[in-house]
Amino acid sequence: MRSPRLLLTMGDVAGIGPEIIARAWPQIVADSKPIVVGDPDWLQRGLAMACSSSRVQEIGALEQAEPTPDTLPCWRATQQNLSRVEAGKVSAEAGRAAYDFLCAAIDKTLAGEADAIVTAPLHKEGLRAAGLHYPGHTEILAERTATRDFAMVLYDGQIAVAHVTLHMALRDVFGKLSTPAVREKIALLDGLLRRLKGTKPRIGVAALNPHASDGGLFGDEEERIIRPAVESARRDGATVSGPWPADTLFRRAAAGEFDGVVAMYHDQGHIALKLRDWAGLVNISAGLPIVRTSVAHGTAYDIAGRGIADPRSLIAAAAAARRLAANP
Amino acid sequence: MRSPRLLLTMGDVAGIGPEIIARAWPQIVADSKPIVVGDPDWLQRGLAMACSSSRVQEIGALEQAEPTPDTLPCWRATQQNLSRVEAGKVSAEAGRAAYDFLCAAIDKTLAGEADAIVTAPLHKEGLRAAGLHYPGHTEILAERTATRDFAMVLYDGQIAVAHVTLHMALRDVFGKLSTPAVREKIALLDGLLRRLKGTKPRIGVAALNPHASDGGLFGDEEERIIRPAVESARRDGATVSGPWPADTLFRRAAAGEFDGVVAMYHDQGHIALKLRDWAGLVNISAGLPIVRTSVAHGTAYDIAGRGIADPRSLIAAAAAARRLAANP
Repeated sequence: MRSPRLLLTMGDVAGIGPEIIARAWPQIVADSKPIVVGDPDWLQRGLAMACSSSRVQEIGALEQAEPTPDTLPCWRATQQNLSRVEAGKVSAEAGRAAYDFLCAAIDKTLAGEADAIVTAPLHKEGLRAAGLHYPGHTEILAERTATRDFAMVLYDGQIAVAHVTLHMALRDVFGKLSTPAVREKIALLDGLLRRLKGTKPRIGVAALNPHASDGGLFGDEEERIIRPAVESARRDGATVSGPWPADTLFRRAAAGEFDGVVAMYHDQGHIALKLRDWAGLVNISAGLPIVRTSVAHGTAYDIAGRGIADPRSLIAAAAAARRLAANP
Repeated sequence: MRSPRLLLTMGDVAGIGPEIIARAWPQIVADSKPIVVGDPDWLQRGLAMACSSSRVQEIGALEQAEPTPDTLPCWRATQQNLSRVEAGKVSAEAGRAAYDFLCAAIDKTLAGEADAIVTAPLHKEGLRAAGLHYPGHTEILAERTATRDFAMVLYDGQIAVAHVTLHMALRDVFGKLSTPAVREKIALLDGLLRRLKGTKPRIGVAALNPHASDGGLFGDEEERIIRPAVESARRDGATVSGPWPADTLFRRAAAGEFDGVVAMYHDQGHIALKLRDWAGLVNISAGLPIVRTSVAHGTAYDIAGRGIADPRSLIAAAAAARRLAANP
């Protein structure tokens, strides 16, 4: 596997992004060519919090980057002045800068100048303070890459969960579920898992209602929407089954029966995987024209600047990005 | 703690009920006075499957029971002929008998002739074949004990989860959530946990929407319905907080921050606890005038009669019943 060029976006600098990049650096640089897309001064602070003696190399173009265990190339991809931002405080400057870092990374990766994007967390309130109304990274990525069909996938190293619906009120889920939408997420998860695991994956699709509606007693989405999608995907060659009652499906997946699960809504998948493995959980955007993985946690403003952030999710995200970049 | 009289209802005899009662018997009889409410012939079959040399003592009244490790008193509390029922097959006879066992146990416990009921699983299709339209045990118990406010609680020995809504389509949850309903479940869980753990419990209440609606971006049930209930319960002295995002709440409870969680819908609580501990999970009906605990699994028709059923959930259910009976 040649060493892929990974763009590590710093996210909201007032969060734990600078620190986890500094802490994760030794592992990430060991088998890839990472470049930080962020603010060099905040990266220097991150190194200090991580008690690292490595230095920041400010670069003006990606080709100048020479990442080593002791050198973190950093591209200052924003015009925001971040010197007055305080750790743990929402600010329009940090919100706008996080958006700039991400957009710059997307554009460079789309242009073929990098192999993948690995994102540190941004803060929705910061985005909003900057007048940017996105619920998170995924929606920015989809818009900027002009992607219609994508899925947010959580991956804990064993199980990958794709979500048919995501950041919306639970009561709005019903209007968004459709057979084509479920069918599409099965296909996205199937393709992603082939690349991640190198084998044909076994996928279980979750029901929406308790007990998978118990034969129609509690709801009809299973028969009306989900089952036709599963059958269509199976006819097209996927190893997929369901709809299964969600409460036993995740247990069965944990026991090794499934590699992937298609969840109908955000909490269905998130409750399960966050309970299984919080520290090493990765968020992957499936269906984009570029590879993008992310930490599965937030900015953790409550511990930002305290030097106690855990870099394991970022390390796992970089490992998944490397694997996906190597298996296009 | 004096040894309480526990009624073990056999549930649907075509399921694993007879076998798990036989397997669990030695542990249950060690610190309680159990009596099987079921069919003596099927109990004998259960003992054979468990390779047990203990014998069945058929009784006509509870006071005749003399439970020992070698003697299982069994009260034939049905007039159904169950000799033609086949393991793993739905039948009206087994469905009706399961209902009869439960009703007999409820009546005796209400009358003060027993301290608690511990139920083996019944089968909804069997009930339906017998013309009985109940989604499960809980609804029968509530009806027969004339209980309006009750909650189904899952308990894994560490965390107890009470559900505000249960066996209904997910789309019907929104019409059933109310501040009084959430408030009531907090109170029921608080009372139950005091009896189970002997200390004042710390309770976390789950949000309904992803990210607890992210400040109102995705839904308003958190501010409109859930928060007022949490604040009311706190004013009344409960150690309770929320609404918390459900995906991190269960992780925090698992890490020891909460003893109990109030979930808004069936799968929210069930996904988490079934993933944590499948084998030892217990179902408790909170709010009834009698103590009732249950296995948290179904009839497992697919393995009924094969001699491989796992009695751990029944053993844990009996232990919880004993504890609740001792702390009224």
